[in-house]
Amino acid sequence: MPDPALLDVFPAPTDAPFVIEHIADEFTSLCPKTGHPDFASVTLRFQPAPASRGGTCVELKSLKLYLQSFRNQGIFYEAVTNLIRDDLARAMNPAWLLVRTDWKGRGGIRSTIRAEFGPVPDHWRS
Amino acid sequence: MPDPALLDVFPAPTDAPFVIEHIADEFTSLCPKTGHPDFASVTLRFQPAPASRGGTCVELKSLKLYLQSFRNQGIFYEAVTNLIRDDLARAMNPAWLLVRTDWKGRGGIRSTIRAEFGPVPDHWRS
Amino acid sequence: MPDPALLDVFPAPTDAPFVIEHIADEFTSLCPKTGHPDFASVTLRFQPAPASRGGTCVELKSLKLYLQSFRNQGIFYEAVTNLIRDDLARAMNPAWLLVRTDWKGRGGIRSTIRAEFGPVPDHWRS
Amino acid sequence: MPDPALLDVFPAPTDAPFVIEHIADEFTSLCPKTGHPDFASVTLRFQPAPASRGGTCVELKSLKLYLQSFRNQGIFYEAVTNLIRDDLARAMNPAWLLVRTDWKGRGGIRSTIRAEFGPVPDHWRS
Amino acid sequence: MPDPALLDVFPAPTDAPFVIEHIADEFTSLCPKTGHPDFASVTLRFQPAPASRGGTCVELKSLKLYLQSFRNQGIFYEAVTNLIRDDLARAMNPAWLLVRTDWKGRGGIRSTIRAEFGPVPDHWRS
Amino acid sequence: MPDPALLDVFPAPTDAPFVIEHIADEFTSLCPKTGHPDFASVTLRFQPAPASRGGTCVELKSLKLYLQSFRNQGIFYEAVTNLIRDDLARAMNPAWLLVRTDWKGRGGIRSTIRAEFGPVPDHWRS
Amino acid sequence: MPDPALLDVFPAPTDAPFVIEHIADEFTSLCPKTGHPDFASVTLRFQPAPASRGGTCVELKSLKLYLQSFRNQGIFYEAVTNLIRDDLARAMNPAWLLVRTDWKGRGGIRSTIRAEFGPVPDHWRS
Amino acid sequence: MPDPALLDVFPAPTDAPFVIEHIADEFTSLCPKTGHPDFASVTLRFQPAPASRGGTCVELKSLKLYLQSFRNQGIFYEAVTNLIRDDLARAMNPAWLLVRTDWKGRGGIRSTIRAEFGPVPDHWRS
Amino acid sequence: MPDPALLDVFPAPTDAPFVIEHIADEFTSLCPKTGHPDFASVTLRFQPAPASRGGTCVELKSLKLYLQSFRNQGIFYEAVTNLIRDDLARAMNPAWLLVRTDWKGRGGIRSTIRAEFGPVPDHWRS
Amino acid sequence: MPDPALLDVFPAPTDAPFVIEHIADEFTSLCPKTGHPDFASVTLRFQPAPASRGGTCVELKSLKLYLQSFRNQGIFYEAVTNLIRDDLARAMNPAWLLVRTDWKGRGGIRSTIRAEFGPVPDHWRS
Repeated sequence: MPDPALLDVFPAPTDAPFVIEHIADEFTSLCPKTGHPDFASVTLRFQPAPASRGGTCVELKSLKLYLQSFRNQGIFYEAVTNLIRDDLARAMNPAWLLVRTDWKGRGGIRSTIRAEFGPVPDHWRS
Repeated sequence: MPDPALLDVFPAPTDAPFVIEHIADEFTSLCPKTGHPDFASVTLRFQPAPASRGGTCVELKSLKLYLQSFRNQGIFYEAVTNLIRDDLARAMNPAWLLVRTDWKGRGGIRSTIRAEFGPVPDHWRS
Repeated sequence: MPDPALLDVFPAPTDAPFVIEHIADEFTSLCPKTGHPDFASVTLRFQPAPASRGGTCVELKSLKLYLQSFRNQGIFYEAVTNLIRDDLARAMNPAWLLVRTDWKGRGGIRSTIRAEFGPVPDHWRS
Repeated sequence: MPDPALLDVFPAPTDAPFVIEHIADEFTSLCPKTGHPDFASVTLRFQPAPASRGGTCVELKSLKLYLQSFRNQGIFYEAVTNLIRDDLARAMNPAWLLVRTDWKGRGGIRSTIRAEFGPVPDHWRS
Repeated sequence: MPDPALLDVFPAPTDAPFVIEHIADEFTSLCPKTGHPDFASVTLRFQPAPASRGGTCVELKSLKLYLQSFRNQGIFYEAVTNLIRDDLARAMNPAWLLVRTDWKGRGGIRSTIRAEFGPVPDHWRS
Repeated sequence: MPDPALLDVFPAPTDAPFVIEHIADEFTSLCPKTGHPDFASVTLRFQPAPASRGGTCVELKSLKLYLQSFRNQGIFYEAVTNLIRDDLARAMNPAWLLVRTDWKGRGGIRSTIRAEFGPVPDHWRS
Repeated sequence: MPDPALLDVFPAPTDAPFVIEHIADEFTSLCPKTGHPDFASVTLRFQPAPASRGGTCVELKSLKLYLQSFRNQGIFYEAVTNLIRDDLARAMNPAWLLVRTDWKGRGGIRSTIRAEFGPVPDHWRS
Repeated sequence: MPDPALLDVFPAPTDAPFVIEHIADEFTSLCPKTGHPDFASVTLRFQPAPASRGGTCVELKSLKLYLQSFRNQGIFYEAVTNLIRDDLARAMNPAWLLVRTDWKGRGGIRSTIRAEFGPVPDHWRS
Repeated sequence: MPDPALLDVFPAPTDAPFVIEHIADEFTSLCPKTGHPDFASVTLRFQPAPASRGGTCVELKSLKLYLQSFRNQGIFYEAVTNLIRDDLARAMNPAWLLVRTDWKGRGGIRSTIRAEFGPVPDHWRS
Repeated sequence: MPDPALLDVFPAPTDAPFVIEHIADEFTSLCPKTGHPDFASVTLRFQPAPASRGGTCVELKSLKLYLQSFRNQGIFYEAVTNLIRDDLARAMNPAWLLVRTDWKGRGGIRSTIRAEFGPVPDHWRS
């Protein structure tokens, strides 16, 4: 079951602006209607709050275990995306957070869901 | 025949801003002049209205059936694109909706049509 | 309904060995179980019999109409592939014929079927 | 010879904003200096004027014939691009039009020319 | 648990030589040492025995369910590959069968395992 | 009009085995039925006869002019390919010659034609 | 030696805004320290001044000869880029000019240098 | 050990705005927890201060040696990125500096870190 | 220092023919002349001896540690490749073994070295 | 001027069969007719004679300098390829040698030349 208690954070190393992106290509959960497995790539992109205001970053191994905890959970695309956004926003309280899930095709239709927390930093350019 | 009654929606799960994209690579209809089949990839991108204001999202299987209902319809590229935009805008009343159709080449010319409904969200970055 | 009578041929232009390949990326038929559309790329590769022995080549526009005649037919992958092989072998009686169908994914599984008629020419190198 | 009389238009189907893109990968003309053939991909991107103000779209087959009329014309890259922009602007009087030509390399140098008519629509995002 | 009883077959449709390939990109099992998930693409390639000698083909949906039955099984790469080869060889008794598994990287090392049953058909050319 | 007199050759520089490949991506001719332009990539691959037996190679600029001479000729795919094979075989009398033409799609079908002269050299590996 | 006198220009054909891009993939000069050759792709992108104010465009063949004049010159990446920008700005006096050089790797490090002249046009979108 | 004393700079060649990008694909350091090697691509992008205000650029060979000095250092992704930003900002005092590190996957998760110094130049467009 | 004692093996699971491939993209060693780091991708491909004759397979984690033991060793490309072939042949005594190293460019030249042990299996097709 | 005296060799390290490939992407020479620069990628692939029979391998830096010595030489494609084959065969006396040159397009035609020395090794598979 998705378990936010698995998430660990560590203090942001600086007040200077920086952005972290983690891409987990091996996410899987179950369709709550059919029980069949769903597969996605999960992208997190965030700017931690400044170190001097208690900013934190999610620890990589804890993130892996957290994402693995969805493996046998029946849950919709939209719920996965919003839940990860909410769990990470609570754990890190970042200046900005974007969660994007890219789902493999079902019935000939591929889907992408994006959820955000906080304003996009001015200096950010993709 | 294209049938908007096939479209089902479900309530948006949150008030927080999020964007959904569905890409259907297997769209086909008929050319109204020649009767020959046309093939396209259909992309929908939308931000639902907030949950607290009755926002909804289109259900994926109903979307598949709706798109399949064009299979033996004679209809032009521009009409397909505007009709999907209108049918989905009516079904979901979203904050923003973009419909893009990418048509395979005919006579050495490939075409793309984009139709929109509502203002592009400020935070959106492709 | 698949209709081999749509196939026209023209006389092979030479006795010298040569190989023709046609790739039709826009093939579609229906799943006989579910009625849902299937999509494939169909590849034909053949060496006509020598001109002096009555060798022929399939005419391109007639091939297009023949392949379009599967559009609303419920038929399995294997049957499509073997039927095209048989219809073309009968129409052209070629020295060699390979039919390959590449089907878009269903339930996360992509499939390719290859059926052949006659011996691969010695000089052929893919 | 390039012949704008070949261009046909049809009425824009709606007042709602939409953008059409046609890409013709098989354009060829002649170098006016050397007589050698030049090859290009020609991209048109336009927003028709609103239907209620007489907006029109170029008809696809007429566009193909118009582009073919350059085949044996000696004409420079810049002139091709500006001429297509002017001919289409006159035929459609669109809200916005972009013409881009991408020329294959000559002497190790590849070239791209872009010409525009009217202001880029606010909502447009490539 | 991997369950060969899930596999269904249907009679081969012809005596003529043909080859079927199924690629399942969404295979997942567990590492028996660490319990962490492994991800692979599983490719089957086979020539059924001739129809007149009782040749059969594996049914696509049953194959999907069979492959899903590895989801929560702790099992090594080599064992997965040999087990699928053995289960399918028993279910279909094909003229030729190749099973290839392509595993995503672990510790910076990607792996591919290939197991075969029966002689490669003379006419086969990749 | 296709003009083999445009082809120049020069003496092969050595008796040692070597293979030359020229790829002309900008070939165009006309469809003899519709008058519409066809576009292809033309590949030549040959081993000259040994220098000591009068082997020759085609000169590159003369090859360009020869291929340009098809520009306004109405001619079928198969005829183009066999004609180039015959003209070059006569001009060079090579140990081996392969001519391959890859045609852009028409009506959703792409085609490739290969014609050969002489036996493939033993040492050749693509 | 780099020689700006090799650059020829011709009058801009129109007052309407348009942008020209030339990409020369075969640039080479020498490292002034080691004497070893450096290889780069050179991109020019410019908007000529309006025709009515004496705007000009660089002639393509003269550009090729100018770029070839660096072949045996010892010169640093930054100097190449700024020199081309200055020579072209002087020759054309354009509304806008961007020069970008993309250098192949040396010691495992690839480099790109961009130099500009004049303000980026408002309507420009990459 | 990472050694900023290895960094050499040279005077910026001009006051005109220009941007330099260096991409080092062969960066490696050690994970401070496990001692296992980490691999990254390191991208620097900067606009030097104007020549007339003492602007400088980092010398390429010194940059290579500086990056190699991380080879046997145990250090986290975030620390690498911020340290390179700080060392280079001190050495060059540039108008703008962006450091991006792209790390190969660990446990199925790829990461990218971006750190910046100074405001993004107005004219910069990726 | 390269240490073959780090290599562990486990018994081959079957007598049936099968082939294993491991690709390690993150190999690094030092140039014995300059001391600068070299980077390579190392590919192993082998068929174990049959289980009934004591065939074994290399254990994946032990392979990773063995390859990491080259990190600070000065050693030439050819020596790396032959040493890995010899160490693995001794540890596994396989029916067939191919070691291929693909080295990143130095001075504009990329290199690949292949060393083999035992005869290529008859059924192998790349 | 091409100078084979620049080539150094070192003793082959083993009698076991192995194959070396060097790819130099930055070769340039001059067209003897026009004086314009030509650009190619040069691939060498060879199996040294066994160490016990005096087999040798070409030294990488000496190869780089040898290839650079063509920079200002006017010489045809075929002559470059045969000359490199002859110079390397003389310097190494290898069991097998293949030289392939891939030339960038001129007048819309790309060329590849392959020259060989000695028989292809039995175990070689591309």
